[in-house]
Formats: sequence, structure tokens, C-alpha cells
Amino acid sequence: MTTIFDIYPAGQIVLREVGLRDGLQMVKSHPTTEAKKDWIRQEYDAGVRCFELGSFLPAHRYPQFADILELIEFLNELDGAHGSALALNRKGADAAVTSGIAEVTAVLSASEAHSKANINRTQDQAIDEIKFLVDLAKSAPHKPLVSVGVAMAFGCSISGEVKSDMVLNLAEQCLTAGADVISLADTVGYAGPSEVASLCGAFKEAFPDQVFGIHLHDTRGLGLANAMAAIQNGATIIDGAMAGLGGCPFAPNATGNIVFEDLVFLCQKEGIETGIQIEKLLGVRDVVQKSMPEEALYGSIAKAGLPRPTQRDEA
Amino acid sequence: MTTIFDIYPAGQIVLREVGLRDGLQMVKSHPTTEAKKDWIRQEYDAGVRCFELGSFLPAHRYPQFADILELIEFLNELDGAHGSALALNRKGADAAVTSGIAEVTAVLSASEAHSKANINRTQDQAIDEIKFLVDLAKSAPHKPLVSVGVAMAFGCSISGEVKSDMVLNLAEQCLTAGADVISLADTVGYAGPSEVASLCGAFKEAFPDQVFGIHLHDTRGLGLANAMAAIQNGATIIDGAMAGLGGCPFAPNATGNIVFEDLVFLCQKEGIETGIQIEKLLGVRDVVQKSMPEEALYGSIAKAGLPRPTQRDEA
Repeated sequence: MTTIFDIYPAGQIVLREVGLRDGLQMVKSHPTTEAKKDWIRQEYDAGVRCFELGSFLPAHRYPQFADILELIEFLNELDGAHGSALALNRKGADAAVTSGIAEVTAVLSASEAHSKANINRTQDQAIDEIKFLVDLAKSAPHKPLVSVGVAMAFGCSISGEVKSDMVLNLAEQCLTAGADVISLADTVGYAGPSEVASLCGAFKEAFPDQVFGIHLHDTRGLGLANAMAAIQNGATIIDGAMAGLGGCPFAPNATGNIVFEDLVFLCQKEGIETGIQIEKLLGVRDVVQKSMPEEALYGSIAKAGLPRPTQRDEA
Repeated sequence: MTTIFDIYPAGQIVLREVGLRDGLQMVKSHPTTEAKKDWIRQEYDAGVRCFELGSFLPAHRYPQFADILELIEFLNELDGAHGSALALNRKGADAAVTSGIAEVTAVLSASEAHSKANINRTQDQAIDEIKFLVDLAKSAPHKPLVSVGVAMAFGCSISGEVKSDMVLNLAEQCLTAGADVISLADTVGYAGPSEVASLCGAFKEAFPDQVFGIHLHDTRGLGLANAMAAIQNGATIIDGAMAGLGGCPFAPNATGNIVFEDLVFLCQKEGIETGIQIEKLLGVRDVVQKSMPEEALYGSIAKAGLPRPTQRDEA
């Protein structure tokens, strides 16, 4: 049985590419299953090992995720690859736990107002669903990890401020319920570096042995500054989306998730070993471009290329 | 007589808008003088006080800077506004010092190879020119400040690595020559946050009472993460260009200077008082767009808008 520390070793930065889930959440067109497999395969060849693959949602409303089972099967054939997928209700949880996915992700809003608006549940009800998911997962033969993404952890587009105490309290309830991983999400790109540093630091202090992640959007340009702050303050699972896909449901023209390729570059500059080769990774943009020609692709490294090698890079 | 601490008070962050100089360095078309005045006026009304206005260069080769004297006259009428302009040779230095500009900026490359390629001078020769400029400035009636921008301070697109010791040594020579301000420039967007933190920290340690600045390009997406690192490590004059104008001469499709509006937002998130109102500032983008319709405008806050107020912002 795989344990959490096989996937997310303590203290080691793991970059997770969430383009196939969060990146496709709001798109008008979406890649074919073959294109998605090409996307995964090329990223895997570039060294990516952690993938958010999709959501267990009704296929008639979310056709972009209809092929989730086929993708899970495909990913599970790749040695050392690790997939996660969202389950937002009991039906999704059932399907996820029996799908063979290595990690099932539930979402919990840090703001009661957003919880009701987004999933039509109170936070208490959402935590009950997480308990249900955990029980299901722990009784399944392959015991998938259960992670919880805490949405709006740095402020809410409906209710404004979100207090750190609220986030820590919710995280504690999730961990008590048996969740393996918590990810703090700046769903709408409200956070600044000091807020990220502060909340990550507080999380680390409250749960010293707990692996946790950060999910950042670059909506207001501070995504990579925030990623740096998260890395410096104990978050080890860092999400990003290929070409910065993902948009923001509350800011129509805004950019989406932090750009995965630029996140890899940040890590490279910081001397953090990710195992990912940027040049190879950039090839995946062609797959995205061709399979979703209407989507805007973001990213700086893709435009500028890598710097001339310096001693630090070569060391 | 204005002293350096009137313009750049110790420990206080000053944001300088360099769009009218660095932003226009490579453009095909450029704003009319009236549009530039509108640009300045609107930024001034939004709270901007420090402007890089242009370069003293031959008007037939750089028509975008031909109106520099008129802009200086215009800016000097605005209470509390402070202008700087580049002088890259003795003719430029003469013109700058007699122009009434409050600050004259010389450029020195941190790499010998770039120095020769860029200004056809060795670093020693460039320092001689800085001495010439300082002498000229100090003997002028209004005694303009002399600043030096150290180009390629974080790596060179010609020679690769640039060592911190080299940058500090050059800075010391400039200060000994009488320069008032040093600005460390990541001319080609090579730096990462830890490198910025390290060089700024070393600068602060070597010259504890010296006001210094940072000039960052967002070529590879790390501009604001680097700005954060610079602010945390003692740099107080932070450059940015309206709409991220400026490009990169060595990476044709790449983005330019860090986006001034997003830099102001970073400061706001960090609780740093800049005196600049973002909503008003965003209006300047119209001037840029209309006067240079072919230029790409960058910026996240302009697309996404400000977050809902949170207690921190309101406090």
C-alpha cells in the first residue's frame, strides 16, 4: 500500500500539474481523450509525476471530465505517476474510490457564504461529506489518499476577509475526520506574499508533521511571489496549470492558475530539485494550443526562453 | 537645495514609474508630447511622484526622447514630483545637468562584455564617465542627484554569470566617485528571488546607510517575486513601467519591466504605503493604448480588478 510519504515525502517540494482539472473547469472546448493522454505522456516524459486528472461530475454537464476513468487507467500505467481527482458529492465519492485513482480531493470553502453558493452546503455539511469520503476511502482495497482543498483560504469574493483561525479550525476538523492532505487555495487570487507566509507558517506551527499544499491563482499577478512565500514557509505540494489555464469564475478576463512552466523555473532558480525539464515541458503547450485553439495560453518562460546558464544553474 | 533624503527618505519605499524612458526604449511608435504630459499628469493625480522621463540621446536616432526638455519643464511644475533621465555620454551629461532635471542616471554594466557591446566602453571607462558626470552635476547650480543603474547585475545575456562581488565592487567605485544612488538592474530578467535577496542583502551590509534601488524585468515571470525579495532586503526605490512596457532587447517576444500597477498592488497587499491609488492609476493605460496602439499592454490588476476589501486593506 502506498503511504502519503511515498507520494509527498516530508520536506520535499512536489509540483502538481492541475491543468487537466482546474484548467478545464470553465473552458468552452476541451481536448480529446487522445490529446489528454498526449498531454500527460509528454509531461511525464518531462519529469512531472503528480497530476490532477479531472473531476467526478455528471458527464452531461461537464463533458470535459467524461473520460476521467480512461485517464486514470492510462496514468496508473506510468511508473511512479500519481493522480488525483475531485469528488464533490457522495455519488462522485463512490465513483472516485472505486476508480483506482490514488488520491481523491474534496473541497471545503473557508467562507460559509462561498460554501453555500458553490456547493449548496454549509461548512458543517461539507465536513460531514469529507467524513463520508474518508470512511469510504479507508475501507476500499487500494485505500486512496484523501485530500481537502480549502477554497477561499485567503479571502472570499463573496464575503471578503477570511480569518486564519477559521482556516486552521477547518483544517483541524478535516484532519480529525481522517484527511491525509490539506491544500490551502487562493481560489480568486486575493493573497499577497505576507498573507501566504503567515497562513502557511501558522499551519506548520499548528500541524508540524502534516504535509500540506498550496493552490494559487495568478489573477492579480502575485502568483509566483506567493508561491515563493509558500515554499519558504513549509508548503510542499505546489499546484500550477500548464500555460496558466483555469481563469477565474469571478473575474471574466483574468488569468488563471499560476503557470506551471514558470513555477518550475522559479524552483530551478531557487535550487529546488523538481526532476522536471523545462524545455521538454514547454512542448506540451502545443498539445494545449491545438486541442483548445480558443484558449489563451499564458507563461513567460515560453516566450522568453531560459537564461544563459549561470554557475548556480550548472552546479 | 534638495537632498537625497528629501526624495528617497531612508527606509521608505518609493515606486518609480519608468515607462516614459525604459518603456519607450524600443518602441516603433511613441506618444506625442501632449500624450506624455497627459500620462504624467494622470499618474501624478494618482499619487505617483517619481518618474523616469527619458534619455538624453540624439533626437534623430531616438525621436521618442526628443521632447525631454519640455517634459522636464512640465514635471518641475508639479509640486513634489521628481524626474530622472538617462545620460549615456558626455554630451548627454552636459545636456542633462543644464536641463533642470532633478536626477541624472548613468548606466554601468556589471559584465565587461555587455559594457563593451552596449556602450562601447570598458567598465573602467564607464566609471570615468560617471566621475565626469558627478563633477558636472556637483558644480551645477541646482546640483542634480547622480544615480547609477548597474545593468546585468543578476546575470548577463552575453557572458552568463555575474558575481555579487563584482557588483559590489562596481557600486563602491561609483559611490567613491560621488554617485548618490545605485540601482541594481536585472536587465534581462534572469534573477530569482533568492538571488535578489542575497545581492540586496550584501549591498545593504556593505553600504548600510546607502539608499539603493532595484530595476526588474518580468521577462521570465519572476518580476514581482523578485520585487518582494528586494523590498524585504533593503532596496527602497523600486522601478516599474506602466502596463509592463519595455520588452527585452535579447528576447523579442518577452514581456518588459515589471508592471507598475501590479507593483503598487503588491505594496498595498503588503501594507506598504505608496500614496498611489490603483483605480486612478489604471486610467493611464488608456493614454498608453491610444498613443501606442501597436504595443502590447500587460498587467493583471487591470484585467481582474481589485479584490473585495478585506480588513487588512481597510485597516
